Amino acid sequence: MSPIRQRALAEQVPAALGIDVSIIHDGQLHDVRGFRASGVHAAIKRRRRDVCIIASNTPATCAGVFTQNRVVAAPVAWSKGVAAKGVAQAIVANSGSANACTGERGHADTKRMAELAGQALGVAPERVLVASTGVIGQLLPMEKIEAGIQAAATLLDANEAGAAAEAIMTTDTAPKQVVVEASYGPHRFRVGAVAKGSGMIAPNMATMLGFVVTDAAVDAATLQRSLSEVVDDTFNAVSVDHDTSTNDCVFVLANGQSGVRVGHEVPEEAFRAVLEGVCTQMAKAIARDGEGATKLLEVTVEGAATKADARRAAKAVVDSPLVKCAVHGADPNWGRILAALGYSGADFDPARVDAWVGGPRQRVQVLSNGEPLDFDHERAHRLMRSSDVHLVAALNAGDASAHAYGCDLTREYVDINAHYTT
Amino acid sequence: MSPIRQRALAEQVPAALGIDVSIIHDGQLHDVRGFRASGVHAAIKRRRRDVCIIASNTPATCAGVFTQNRVVAAPVAWSKGVAAKGVAQAIVANSGSANACTGERGHADTKRMAELAGQALGVAPERVLVASTGVIGQLLPMEKIEAGIQAAATLLDANEAGAAAEAIMTTDTAPKQVVVEASYGPHRFRVGAVAKGSGMIAPNMATMLGFVVTDAAVDAATLQRSLSEVVDDTFNAVSVDHDTSTNDCVFVLANGQSGVRVGHEVPEEAFRAVLEGVCTQMAKAIARDGEGATKLLEVTVEGAATKADARRAAKAVVDSPLVKCAVHGADPNWGRILAALGYSGADFDPARVDAWVGGPRQRVQVLSNGEPLDFDHERAHRLMRSSDVHLVAALNAGDASAHAYGCDLTREYVDINAHYTT
Repeated sequence: MSPIRQRALAEQVPAALGIDVSIIHDGQLHDVRGFRASGVHAAIKRRRRDVCIIASNTPATCAGVFTQNRVVAAPVAWSKGVAAKGVAQAIVANSGSANACTGERGHADTKRMAELAGQALGVAPERVLVASTGVIGQLLPMEKIEAGIQAAATLLDANEAGAAAEAIMTTDTAPKQVVVEASYGPHRFRVGAVAKGSGMIAPNMATMLGFVVTDAAVDAATLQRSLSEVVDDTFNAVSVDHDTSTNDCVFVLANGQSGVRVGHEVPEEAFRAVLEGVCTQMAKAIARDGEGATKLLEVTVEGAATKADARRAAKAVVDSPLVKCAVHGADPNWGRILAALGYSGADFDPARVDAWVGGPRQRVQVLSNGEPLDFDHERAHRLMRSSDVHLVAALNAGDASAHAYGCDLTREYVDINAHYTT
Repeated sequence: MSPIRQRALAEQVPAALGIDVSIIHDGQLHDVRGFRASGVHAAIKRRRRDVCIIASNTPATCAGVFTQNRVVAAPVAWSKGVAAKGVAQAIVANSGSANACTGERGHADTKRMAELAGQALGVAPERVLVASTGVIGQLLPMEKIEAGIQAAATLLDANEAGAAAEAIMTTDTAPKQVVVEASYGPHRFRVGAVAKGSGMIAPNMATMLGFVVTDAAVDAATLQRSLSEVVDDTFNAVSVDHDTSTNDCVFVLANGQSGVRVGHEVPEEAFRAVLEGVCTQMAKAIARDGEGATKLLEVTVEGAATKADARRAAKAVVDSPLVKCAVHGADPNWGRILAALGYSGADFDPARVDAWVGGPRQRVQVLSNGEPLDFDHERAHRLMRSSDVHLVAALNAGDASAHAYGCDLTREYVDINAHYTT
């Protein structure tokens, strides 16, 4: 069911932290103690599931990060309020309609979703996070939503594999889900996540959604801090097409049912590394499934003067339409990489830049001290034909580094986004 | 020869300034008094002309604006030095090779180009502006360049129509050239320009070049100030794919041979309006000829709090891959426009935004106070099938407005940029 590559998550978690992380094969959200999840087809969309509930048996601390777009959908406004209080017990979400640009009525409909889910679960509506994704500017079909929420609540114990992950999909071609178990000495806890992609959807736009649950015990302030720190290097490092939706959000719920307390049995740093590993998996899965994409593009910038510079530079490369086209064509086009670094706003000396192109395992150096090397084009081209393309640039201006995740730019992206009315 | 639409330039020049501007049909740079221009095929490229010279019979004041990219080609560094002194008599340029990322040797080659052109014309090399465009990271083929410069100098009196405009083309599909005559009471002067597009070129990147000549007399400080003010609303308002080249530059030469002195016979403001009209024509021609483009996209943002906000917002819309795809599909997709405004960084209240979509003559309102109108989709779609698509957004946050120019995003853009090695 889970389409993400089960590459050793351990790679991403520094060994020095003393924490082991392993992916649970085919793990579901209900494998995280005290959580249940379901997804149903409420006929908002023609065929696929479109309403989901994720619920904890007990109140959980919660944290959230939200779109920076000035235009904000009604459910984002609501969920910001819930997250600010730091306690939630459920998430209710729908796909097919984003409930954005819908005025007062939109806010009332979001509140109604929280009330309906709250009633079905015996939870106060103020403890229900709400998310919507899909077409903007249309009112939610509330009768369908109501029936969907009832049905989803009823099915919470049915443990249908992947149903929740499926119900938040829009133009995603595969559900995105991961569950990991972390061990720190004798202490074990789990973290699970579902997400949907930021590929944009006809006729308007879709959304990046990420819902993370853990049975670790984490106080709300620590949870929010951990999420905020992690999100810049994971979900915010994804760029399918540098468009930012009105509905993006990531929630984390921590119900403590593993009995493992972050800050006591497990240091905050170790928890954050696990959370980052999970979010990185989701981020890559989203990038790989960008609209029309055939490849995951990972860009690493090393040796930047500051972390902000490293992120800026990596983002500029991953966002460049020319780089994305070159990746599609497996073209070791270092000039486009250097040009993108140059306009990124990062501070560096072009005459000191080194760069490499390749796949996940092997790479070829193409640029040394800002000048092209006489490299093996055929080999570089072959490595870049991988479904995982990795571009690395060393600015030699400092010690900071960052990754960015994206995908190639293809004819299919154009077709998906140009031709829905015609 | 000239492919740009000969729409009344007068539309763009405020009537209140009391200056009349008309386009000279099939005008060439030598129609501007005291200027000559030529272009030859020096075999840097396989088939098309690739070396050009533009020369004034007498020293001219000059001004320049240059790429903001941190990675800067050798000719940009040279020409910055010339422009800083405010006097020049010639421009020599080549296409096919950008002389960027070429180290010390690149700087020596640029200087040699200025010397060769200077010798052929009897002008000091310090008075020769140099530009190169094409592949980066390759040394210039100096033997070919030398022969090309000699030949171009010889042909300066031949008045071959459009030869200079042709010699700076890379992936442009048509040369871009305009000559106008301005009348202010009894005073007449001319302004001519050639430009090439910012579509990016295999295997690396190309450049936006604009060369403007006028027979008005303008002191160097006024010329630089006029150009700097005009460029933000014209050349800098163009975005084919939000990639910024290492070689972009715009030069203006003013040789005074019309006897009309700016600041005396003609007010600076009127001259600036004429310069802006010419640069706008070039900017639109570049946008329309973006790689793979089938349409010119013009975005107008009105009612912004500041000019900077207006530009930012218009740029975000014209840059959005989703908007560009929607324009390609003639899809009146207001959601994507609103989303782009939202992430542009401009300060406004989404609940006050109005928006219209359409062609150059007619438009349909699609959004009022941030909420969608029940508009005639079929009519909007029909208007957007024009080869000139115009999107207008009123932020209702102030009095500032700005335009941005771009094009649609097509399968052809992907093909051009993905598949050169394979």
